[in-house]
Amino acid sequence: MSQADKIESTDTLSPGEPSSSNGGNSSTKLEDETKNELELAAVLVSDAQYNRNIFFETSPQGVRLYMLYNHWGMKVLLYTFIIVNLALALFEDPALIPLPIWVTLVAELICLTVFTARLIHYAKVIPHQKFWKDPKNICIIVIILLTLVDMIIYGSMKAADYYGVRWSRVLRPLFLVNVTEGRQLRRAFRSIRNALPQILYVFLLFIFTVLMFSLMALKLFGKRGLVTSEGRQYFTDYLEIVFELYVLVTTANSPDVMMPAYNASFFFAVFFIVYILINTYIFMSVFLAVVYNNYKKYLKEEVRQLVRAKRNKMVRAFRVLQETWGGEPRVTQARWNQLVRMVQPGLSNSHRELLWCVSDVDKKGYIGKMAFIQLADLLNIQVITVKSRTHPLQNWLPGLYSSAASRFICRMVLHKAFVYAYDVIIVVNAVFIGLDEENSLISNVEWVFLGLYMLEILLKLYTFEPRAFFAKHQFWNWFDTIIVVSALIATIINSALRSSGGYTSRQILDIIFILRVLRLIRIVDSIERFRTILNTLIKIGPAILTFGQLIIVVYYIFAMVGMELFKVTHVSARIFFVLFHIVVVIIIINIFVAFVLEAFFVEYTVAKSDLQSSLEKKIEELELGVEQDKLENSLIEDMETQDNDLGPSETTKEKPSLMFRIASRRYKTVDGLLQKIFEADLSPEDNADDEDPDSPLNPDCSIPNPVYDSI
Amino acid sequence: MSQADKIESTDTLSPGEPSSSNGGNSSTKLEDETKNELELAAVLVSDAQYNRNIFFETSPQGVRLYMLYNHWGMKVLLYTFIIVNLALALFEDPALIPLPIWVTLVAELICLTVFTARLIHYAKVIPHQKFWKDPKNICIIVIILLTLVDMIIYGSMKAADYYGVRWSRVLRPLFLVNVTEGRQLRRAFRSIRNALPQILYVFLLFIFTVLMFSLMALKLFGKRGLVTSEGRQYFTDYLEIVFELYVLVTTANSPDVMMPAYNASFFFAVFFIVYILINTYIFMSVFLAVVYNNYKKYLKEEVRQLVRAKRNKMVRAFRVLQETWGGEPRVTQARWNQLVRMVQPGLSNSHRELLWCVSDVDKKGYIGKMAFIQLADLLNIQVITVKSRTHPLQNWLPGLYSSAASRFICRMVLHKAFVYAYDVIIVVNAVFIGLDEENSLISNVEWVFLGLYMLEILLKLYTFEPRAFFAKHQFWNWFDTIIVVSALIATIINSALRSSGGYTSRQILDIIFILRVLRLIRIVDSIERFRTILNTLIKIGPAILTFGQLIIVVYYIFAMVGMELFKVTHVSARIFFVLFHIVVVIIIINIFVAFVLEAFFVEYTVAKSDLQSSLEKKIEELELGVEQDKLENSLIEDMETQDNDLGPSETTKEKPSLMFRIASRRYKTVDGLLQKIFEADLSPEDNADDEDPDSPLNPDCSIPNPVYDSI
Repeated sequence: MSQADKIESTDTLSPGEPSSSNGGNSSTKLEDETKNELELAAVLVSDAQYNRNIFFETSPQGVRLYMLYNHWGMKVLLYTFIIVNLALALFEDPALIPLPIWVTLVAELICLTVFTARLIHYAKVIPHQKFWKDPKNICIIVIILLTLVDMIIYGSMKAADYYGVRWSRVLRPLFLVNVTEGRQLRRAFRSIRNALPQILYVFLLFIFTVLMFSLMALKLFGKRGLVTSEGRQYFTDYLEIVFELYVLVTTANSPDVMMPAYNASFFFAVFFIVYILINTYIFMSVFLAVVYNNYKKYLKEEVRQLVRAKRNKMVRAFRVLQETWGGEPRVTQARWNQLVRMVQPGLSNSHRELLWCVSDVDKKGYIGKMAFIQLADLLNIQVITVKSRTHPLQNWLPGLYSSAASRFICRMVLHKAFVYAYDVIIVVNAVFIGLDEENSLISNVEWVFLGLYMLEILLKLYTFEPRAFFAKHQFWNWFDTIIVVSALIATIINSALRSSGGYTSRQILDIIFILRVLRLIRIVDSIERFRTILNTLIKIGPAILTFGQLIIVVYYIFAMVGMELFKVTHVSARIFFVLFHIVVVIIIINIFVAFVLEAFFVEYTVAKSDLQSSLEKKIEELELGVEQDKLENSLIEDMETQDNDLGPSETTKEKPSLMFRIASRRYKTVDGLLQKIFEADLSPEDNADDEDPDSPLNPDCSIPNPVYDSI
Repeated sequence: MSQADKIESTDTLSPGEPSSSNGGNSSTKLEDETKNELELAAVLVSDAQYNRNIFFETSPQGVRLYMLYNHWGMKVLLYTFIIVNLALALFEDPALIPLPIWVTLVAELICLTVFTARLIHYAKVIPHQKFWKDPKNICIIVIILLTLVDMIIYGSMKAADYYGVRWSRVLRPLFLVNVTEGRQLRRAFRSIRNALPQILYVFLLFIFTVLMFSLMALKLFGKRGLVTSEGRQYFTDYLEIVFELYVLVTTANSPDVMMPAYNASFFFAVFFIVYILINTYIFMSVFLAVVYNNYKKYLKEEVRQLVRAKRNKMVRAFRVLQETWGGEPRVTQARWNQLVRMVQPGLSNSHRELLWCVSDVDKKGYIGKMAFIQLADLLNIQVITVKSRTHPLQNWLPGLYSSAASRFICRMVLHKAFVYAYDVIIVVNAVFIGLDEENSLISNVEWVFLGLYMLEILLKLYTFEPRAFFAKHQFWNWFDTIIVVSALIATIINSALRSSGGYTSRQILDIIFILRVLRLIRIVDSIERFRTILNTLIKIGPAILTFGQLIIVVYYIFAMVGMELFKVTHVSARIFFVLFHIVVVIIIINIFVAFVLEAFFVEYTVAKSDLQSSLEKKIEELELGVEQDKLENSLIEDMETQDNDLGPSETTKEKPSLMFRIASRRYKTVDGLLQKIFEADLSPEDNADDEDPDSPLNPDCSIPNPVYDSI
């Protein structure tokens, strides 16, 4: 790569900035430069992979500072302090667990210091003008300042024994929204804000309907002298009626509100039936429809921008690494390997080689821009490396492990009847759990069950290779082991306590009960259809977490406002309830439902993405594939192959010692799911859109997954 | 058309049946034959238009019997008796309005007689073997027989003063499903049945979750000796807990169930939060997703078959009418006109000519098969014929009506300020309605408002041509007039009663109140955005009616079973509630929501159908168009043109006396909406699929709306 090339490519990143490479000649300098380039490219690829959109300083120091900023430890630290900051409300007046004021104030001060430090770090990473233009930074600064002011006022008020309000607590959840990592949350809020105008009109019509019905109710029931079951006057005050009818939409007060009128005349039931039909059924459905429609529309636009930004970052990374040979810019395998090693150090060599095979279909030893660009998406596909290892017992005690008895045990464990037997045990266990545990017979039976579960785990460990059994993706194995071992430990402690002094800790018993019941969940995994549904739920789980944060933000703000409000007055309670209902039920819950709907449809209908299937194809091509639902069977086969592996004559074809399988489409990031949702709707131009003015618009650009062209 | 042709075409309809045309020669016979042919074709087109799928006897007598069967009067009669039959429950023991047993029994007997007569009529219309193969006919026969048996048993039991159960009442709503006209309802039930297996698995998983949580609740809370607010033991019985937690999913008992545990320890709140999160939010969303997805999938298949059947019927009608000239079968304008006149006698000549223009684009005087086929869809597009008529006052009192004062009044009424003024009046009126009407001042003010509203209507009638003002599609004009005139009459009667004897009828007052409040709805029409939402709701209204019937069927059956059940026992109440919740909430309501969602998306996003726009294009081409939102303005222009029409020199271009506009896309039939929903998904082959083996598969077939090809 020529010097001029490199300078140009750096220039396109941040024009006007002094290039780091100013004509040094010594080999150390060149190595340094290569390292700097690689680091820059790695950061760009990593940004593209996780859809980060930060314009960092491209000097080597800037890149390193930025890499530190993105370090997972920093993020864990940040989120820990955000949670501490939010949790402070539990210890503040009116406290669940009261602590002295100075403790909470000091804790909050520490949190604020951490947030400030993180913000200063961010300010060093990105250009100054970018920092001050970004509203989320300004937002954090304002929140910190306001909180400090509030703390000072509140502290001095308390010191002087005056009554003070900690109003800045309302601002705490906003940290969750405004930190750099709150991208998804900000996007969700943005989508809501954009959908608001449409929702507003339907909402106004809904309110109009409620007002009309209330007026009718006032005229129909007001003069009849009806009384409620508590003897109060029924439907005589207009605002009272409006509130009661609004609550009726949620059906929370349905029998109480209707009965007096219904008792007066049967025909008044018609009034309430029509009301519930219009406002509960039709309007709530329309709300869902409008929210769903608008939310989807704006989210699609956001995802489109996301895909575009990702592509731009990958193009920039390619520019940094490219070498021009024969007029065509390309990246060699060696550089690519260095890059991937830097981007994802945990990636196994074999996995990396697989990715290279997918990128470099023609085995030329280098790849062009279009093949390079898809690296970010390739890295997001979870590939599980299945290594067929020999069982340690086979190594230590080969004679015993290969004996007929041992092989019988293995075959027994692998038999379907073994699974069924344990399903029956679980069901019987469920019945025993339901019985009274103070009966000594039943509490003794519990030991039997514990023993049976332990036996199951040990047998499986005997049959399967332990490292394969406890692989990252073996969710149920981990689940079983943790639950059973914890239950064992807790039961032993409990028995020890009881036998020593007859004393039983309520807490430990609670934990034992919860563990026992959780153990029963395992049966879900035995039923094929249940597993499918559960897997779908688990797949959309991470995406649902974003909504969890959204709900936390909204609930926290409402809780804080409500706490202060109800200290002062009890009249505003209704307005507060209605507001809460509007925000949470009509907007947030509907968006949540809309999201679940959409994610489910995607899971049920859309075929696997092109890119992923190209990876799968490659795996199949190389005969390295392990079909997902046959994983256990293939583990068996591996075992048996090894068992029989007394001479090379017996095995007709040597199995490769390394196999891959694509993890069931679990989305590493919410963005992945979103991109998937809108994949069909994104026009090819969005993927091909090239914002660099100097790049020639080559025709290949319009194909999102160019690997397919050459296949 | 040759004799041989005709026989062949009749043969394809029902092979083996003797053809009605056996070689007669006299002109009367030929005329008869033409009439028979036309009648057959008309019935086929009408069947295609309304998506009826009945294989009637094609003999002239059969066709006439079938036409009688489809007569609207017959249907009104049938549905009246179905409603009477359903309403009998109000008068039977346990009665709301008790009637002697013999009255209800005789009424039911009359209903059954009507249903039997209708069924015999149907048996005469269709071939015998078809009749006995159709499960819905068998169903009706069984229901009638069972009901008769039940009536006899019940009657004799009652006569002997024994206790009897009218169990056959449960079967009554099934008439609604099984009559020929219950197509949509049957389709809805079929879709539900097909979606059930998928729903079942999710439901089982949901029940499993509830059982698990119940077990956990039993272990956690059962031994703590907690009591509910009513002092009962809390969470000690497993089945009790299961029921309480199931109800908690609906949030109906949310604070009562949670409070005892929450009072015992704050941390138990986590249990309920997790439970509500999983079961109320996630599972209910998943239910909606699964129901929506499956329902849509199966419905799409049904609609596809519908479109195919429609096309086949049109092809058959074409065969009956076709004449072969130059090797190409075609239908002349004269025959087409006769046909359309017979299919829809109410259609104006101008409207018919417009439809012909759209079909015969090249003005050849005849049309081919593809152009003929679209007639059924063309007839389903509501075209409103706008005739510009002279105001009657202009004819009777031309001097007065054209005077400056009269023209000032007209201009005033047409001014926007007039609308605003009445909006203000409505708002002020709303305030007065809310005030106490026993105050004599306020009751007098009501007269003022009534007068103002009457004045508005009279002024509008003065300005607009009365027949145009009261045109079929002028919903709000009809609404206003009916409400105001009814209120006027009721108020006068009330005043008369009061002044005569000081006596006020509560019923009349109730009616007046309802009318007064309903008047206020008018304000919705003044606000553009509200009108849009309301129109969308009105448009999907007829489709929602199908679901109304579905809900009536389900509720009625549950009500009847519940009534008999609760007479005998009070223990089964919970199982009954859970069943009701499963059927109504989880299945029916979700399908309802799914339907509203889908219909709303269609209204919001899909462009007008191709066929409709071709009609609109034609209207524009012929300069006969009146843009919908400019209708009132164009009426004004017409008025002013007429006002100024003192000499032909003043009007630059004579306006045609007749104008058309496409009614806002309101669906005449539910099928129309469904077809629209799945329009994008229906492949062209579905439209082109030709089941007649003898028709040449011409390449034009693959275009659904062939008019577009020639444009």
